Amino acid sequence: KVFAGTHLIIEVIDAEGLDDEARIQKAFRDCVEECGATLLHIHTHKFTPQGVSGVAVLAESHISVHTWPEVGYGAFDVFMCGDAEPWRSVEVLRKAFNAGEVRVKEMLRGEGLVD
Amino acid sequence: KVFAGTHLIIEVIDAEGLDDEARIQKAFRDCVEECGATLLHIHTHKFTPQGVSGVAVLAESHISVHTWPEVGYGAFDVFMCGDAEPWRSVEVLRKAFNAGEVRVKEMLRGEGLVD
Repeated sequence: KVFAGTHLIIEVIDAEGLDDEARIQKAFRDCVEECGATLLHIHTHKFTPQGVSGVAVLAESHISVHTWPEVGYGAFDVFMCGDAEPWRSVEVLRKAFNAGEVRVKEMLRGEGLVD
Repeated sequence: KVFAGTHLIIEVIDAEGLDDEARIQKAFRDCVEECGATLLHIHTHKFTPQGVSGVAVLAESHISVHTWPEVGYGAFDVFMCGDAEPWRSVEVLRKAFNAGEVRVKEMLRGEGLVD
């Protein structure tokens, strides 16, 4: 199958630490390392009274998150092309936030559109 | 239905200008305005020999893109929560890159997980 990249839609549920920018940045860096990717840029934003948004631009695409700490929910995306292994991020995120449940959907972006 | 946010997976096909960081940043800003969102942070990265990755962090979540200009393909995401109207970005992106085709999938993130 020919496609541009693997995009994982990751719902992290019953989780802790989702209001902690440093913990989120560390989780992103751990995902990058575990998946064999390369970090180019990272940015997080803390909302009041709670919630964090974060993005990491990679040589292989991106990681993003938006969190609702008050209900223990984080909406993560891990999008990687090339030789990186995005599925390895799932266990990294589960452990990073001590998640009770993690739901993953895989989307093959650009399927049939690139060589 | 109760969910955290609307996440549009947007495949922009047979498009032009996808190697132009300024054009991509303008398209992001136009989407933000058209959808009634608020821009917090924007970053683009130009690859050699071609391709751009871009992210915009919004008060309402994010916009991202990864482009393959050599085949006229851009993988956009528009994720917005609250009162913003993400579907309004589809026509903005179509026009911004003179796209021959735009395919959109809608995902309701955090469905049943938030109040």
